[in-house]
Amino acid sequence: MKAKGYMGGVLWVDLTHGTSEVRPLDDGTAEKYIGGSGLGTRILCDETTPATDPLGPENPLIFSVGPLVGTRIFNSNRYSVVSKSPLTGHYGEANSGGHWGGAFKKCGYDALVVTGASAKPVLLFLDGKRVSIEEAGELWGKDTFQTEANLKKRYGEEVQAALIGQAGENLVRLANVITDAAHGRAAGRCGLGAVMGSKKLKAIVVKGDREVPLAHPEKIKELIKRLGPTMREGANFLQYGTSGGVDYCEDIGNIPVKNWHQGPWKPASKISGQEMSKTILTRRYYCGQCTLGCGRVVKAVGGPYDGMEIGGPEYETVGLLGSNCLVDDLPGIAKSNELCNRFGLDTISTGGVIGFAMEAWERGLVGREDTAGVELVWGSVSAVHAMIEQIAFFRDLGKVLGQGVRRAAEVIGGSAGEFALHVKGLEPPAHDPRAKVTVALGFATANRGACHLAAFTHDFEEALFLQDLGLPQLTDRFAIDGKVENVVRMQHLMGMLDALTVCKFCVFGGLTIQPLVEVINYVTGWSMDTDGFFRAGERIFNLKRMFINHCGLSRKDDMLSARWLTHRRGGGTNFLPPIGELLSRYYQQRGWDEFGVPTAAKLAELGIAGS
Amino acid sequence: MKAKGYMGGVLWVDLTHGTSEVRPLDDGTAEKYIGGSGLGTRILCDETTPATDPLGPENPLIFSVGPLVGTRIFNSNRYSVVSKSPLTGHYGEANSGGHWGGAFKKCGYDALVVTGASAKPVLLFLDGKRVSIEEAGELWGKDTFQTEANLKKRYGEEVQAALIGQAGENLVRLANVITDAAHGRAAGRCGLGAVMGSKKLKAIVVKGDREVPLAHPEKIKELIKRLGPTMREGANFLQYGTSGGVDYCEDIGNIPVKNWHQGPWKPASKISGQEMSKTILTRRYYCGQCTLGCGRVVKAVGGPYDGMEIGGPEYETVGLLGSNCLVDDLPGIAKSNELCNRFGLDTISTGGVIGFAMEAWERGLVGREDTAGVELVWGSVSAVHAMIEQIAFFRDLGKVLGQGVRRAAEVIGGSAGEFALHVKGLEPPAHDPRAKVTVALGFATANRGACHLAAFTHDFEEALFLQDLGLPQLTDRFAIDGKVENVVRMQHLMGMLDALTVCKFCVFGGLTIQPLVEVINYVTGWSMDTDGFFRAGERIFNLKRMFINHCGLSRKDDMLSARWLTHRRGGGTNFLPPIGELLSRYYQQRGWDEFGVPTAAKLAELGIAGS
Repeated sequence: MKAKGYMGGVLWVDLTHGTSEVRPLDDGTAEKYIGGSGLGTRILCDETTPATDPLGPENPLIFSVGPLVGTRIFNSNRYSVVSKSPLTGHYGEANSGGHWGGAFKKCGYDALVVTGASAKPVLLFLDGKRVSIEEAGELWGKDTFQTEANLKKRYGEEVQAALIGQAGENLVRLANVITDAAHGRAAGRCGLGAVMGSKKLKAIVVKGDREVPLAHPEKIKELIKRLGPTMREGANFLQYGTSGGVDYCEDIGNIPVKNWHQGPWKPASKISGQEMSKTILTRRYYCGQCTLGCGRVVKAVGGPYDGMEIGGPEYETVGLLGSNCLVDDLPGIAKSNELCNRFGLDTISTGGVIGFAMEAWERGLVGREDTAGVELVWGSVSAVHAMIEQIAFFRDLGKVLGQGVRRAAEVIGGSAGEFALHVKGLEPPAHDPRAKVTVALGFATANRGACHLAAFTHDFEEALFLQDLGLPQLTDRFAIDGKVENVVRMQHLMGMLDALTVCKFCVFGGLTIQPLVEVINYVTGWSMDTDGFFRAGERIFNLKRMFINHCGLSRKDDMLSARWLTHRRGGGTNFLPPIGELLSRYYQQRGWDEFGVPTAAKLAELGIAGS
Repeated sequence: MKAKGYMGGVLWVDLTHGTSEVRPLDDGTAEKYIGGSGLGTRILCDETTPATDPLGPENPLIFSVGPLVGTRIFNSNRYSVVSKSPLTGHYGEANSGGHWGGAFKKCGYDALVVTGASAKPVLLFLDGKRVSIEEAGELWGKDTFQTEANLKKRYGEEVQAALIGQAGENLVRLANVITDAAHGRAAGRCGLGAVMGSKKLKAIVVKGDREVPLAHPEKIKELIKRLGPTMREGANFLQYGTSGGVDYCEDIGNIPVKNWHQGPWKPASKISGQEMSKTILTRRYYCGQCTLGCGRVVKAVGGPYDGMEIGGPEYETVGLLGSNCLVDDLPGIAKSNELCNRFGLDTISTGGVIGFAMEAWERGLVGREDTAGVELVWGSVSAVHAMIEQIAFFRDLGKVLGQGVRRAAEVIGGSAGEFALHVKGLEPPAHDPRAKVTVALGFATANRGACHLAAFTHDFEEALFLQDLGLPQLTDRFAIDGKVENVVRMQHLMGMLDALTVCKFCVFGGLTIQPLVEVINYVTGWSMDTDGFFRAGERIFNLKRMFINHCGLSRKDDMLSARWLTHRRGGGTNFLPPIGELLSRYYQQRGWDEFGVPTAAKLAELGIAGS
């Protein structure tokens, strides 16, 4: 291929037959879908039908990176996983930082497509020279910490491994893919660890040292030098990690409390990043090429978790496994985080189903006979720990909860569906659609379901860091006007960051739209302008929409759970989002029909008419 | 048992083992659940769990009658079928007139519970002396007309048979149970013919002559004499059959047009009962004990259907297979009705899925490659006939449509879900929730799904025939006040008629609440008063609600399809029902919680706490 920044090949591994091949990545596809979840979705659309079973061998599991990955560009070391989601039954996407993405790319690939399923546990080893499917029976049943330690012993300290814990092995639909296990980096959402488990693929071990070709290395060097100071200053915004926002989020009615049923909750400050810094924090953690260091490393001294030294919980984890369950014990939450990382469970969905289960307990819909005796009362951190184990090992109530909140509500029956909060089958992250209009619309329209990352407006609605977004500044979080345009634009920007597999926090350090476009061109040799950047974001967003649309999702599924639409949060926040009006305006803005389906004209305009 | 009117026994037939037994019906159960679908639901609750597969051998198929059946009381010859519905996955109920109910009861049973499944096609023969499971291989594959003719040849002209056509054999989820096949009486809704098919049970042939014991035969004789004149006058209301209301229903925006997307439709008068009387009608048809004769017999002379002489289409059939598909060819609709009856398909659901499919065709979501070349254009009666065949034989697009509109939309994908109108998985009958507030609320809260019979307010909102309902007269069909009370009361009355298995048209002839209570007491020997009558209705309604609640249905499922809530019908009818407010008021009126679940206090009050 002519474009730089790409290795030019996609590795296809068929685990049923134990074969592999590299297929070239062409310039047209790269320029249209960029990489990461853009390229991943393109492959997913080509390789699946609405009948594809997410846990069947026919479901492709796609790992992919973007053109900046493997370079020295700030925050550029992420990777994306795309597959049909066993949790939601439609579009599945997750991504993560850490150090795997760059090492994978340096093996010489832009993406890896795993198809088929092995009969016995295996791992995949890539080092840029060979592709080796190796026996992994002795790793099966081991947690992520043990597995990583074992792999580093077997292949050397320098290898990076994307792997699953017991949850993925047990096909738990909340299972994630872990890298940098000791620091708990997770491609968390949509249960893609279960897809890996269904293929009996325990780990993908990579060790690469190929160079990523660059179109204009000097200009890149210069840009890195230019942005260096602000990128390092950006670290100040994240001094307390993402959970530094807990108090503020409680104040504005954003953090979930008691399964989204309660408003104010004073103990929030006990689980904040500030409190963490004062107590269990030992140092910050940085993904590859990161100058910001939002990651935490914590250590418990004394108390029930004495000696525990692990990656600390971030905001979403604190919100879902903490306030959502009325748990105000910060070391206890850190332990919950450890257990989720160890077993390979998404902390957001896991906290979501446990909060749901606590409400079901309170309402008398589940009892001791279901939980193997665990008292599932609000605020009980030991109950949370017990549930995480039951979920990971798919036993007792975990058999129900491990299917996600939507299926769990169907199994439990009664009125459980009324307090099973989700969008399109995905449990929500710790941002309340009643706190910001853009969050409501962002949740409703994100392709994978209730997602804070597809529009990222919980942080950026006011666009403080994004003067170059090209839209008016927003000031009233409950106002309607201007919000649809904001969400659409943000979805294109964030979709591009997911295609580039660059960390979204890059904007905190000044790597905003104009510099991003610049650096993409310096790496690839393209002549992309801002319009082209957003056009690619729009193309990718529409392609994902077409995928879920083929799965039968449309306007009726762009719906928030009733609790968010009808139950006022109380405290300072009495807003209920007018979802119907928002959707109508949004479809119009997007050039979609009344049911939320991209029109033929829109698809033709974006060059994806034949998809 | 002490109560008269009952035969005192329930026949249990296990088709897996080829065994049967009669279990006594006790007085307590009879007085609490009356009979018909009340008694049927009680048995269904006892014999199923939320995991019961509707098409698995574990699903009981229950036929039941009420205490007035088999007597000379007007309109009292109906029977009820209750089972878990393969169409909706939850509560399934259907009932029918004709002549089977009385003949079955006179075999000495109040109900029949069929469990298990036969390996080979069988029929069940009952004559009051023996219970015989007989080989029916030679009937398998035959249509309902052929099957009935065959059975009458084999067992004598006087036998009555409840049977299935090819649709039930093929497990089509829209299949019904047919009696009086030559006149097309159908227990139509919820796909219960497929349950019969899953058990390989082709027919239940009955020939009974036992006497139904009566508590006060003289008083019954007197009441029959007293009501006779008005009961015969009631026939005037039904001079043109149920489809005599077509013009009126088009005028007020009640009949579906173009899959519920269009308002006024002038050709409606071409498919009315008045037009039928002028053209193809030969005579009226009367079920057992009926004085009203809403049934039609029609004959085509000349034209494409020359010589066809069959049971004529009633209002729902004309609405769904006619105006809903923009078909204005009355003999053609009669032919559609014939095909549905012949193959054993519910005309309402079948017309619903065909209208849906025509819209999918118009929107380009299905094409010639799906329909085996059939042009599925609006108004094409030949397309309707072709689709009925594809559905019955579960081939081509029928494989998709035969699963009902909800599943079909999932298979077709795209925006199909947006115009797949249903409530709780059941396709709606020909009454528009935008035309009357009580119809909206009745559809939303009927236990089996979109149902006009559970509240029957499309005819009776104004309670013209029901001065003794004990509620204020309603005059404004779009007003909210008073409607919740009306729907609740009507649901109890109609639930009682379904438990008594008495035709709801009885009120046209003056057999209204007070005379009904009287006659129940004359037959059974009870001392029921009006309060007790409505209390039994409430108990039965709540028991059904508990069943669907156990299946996971609650407020979120008491929802109308978006088209009814957001798309104005146009013409004279621009009303959209305020469903949220209606439900809140309704739950309060019923003593249910905010999610639509009966409270423990309400269940205790009704004596069904332990259910």
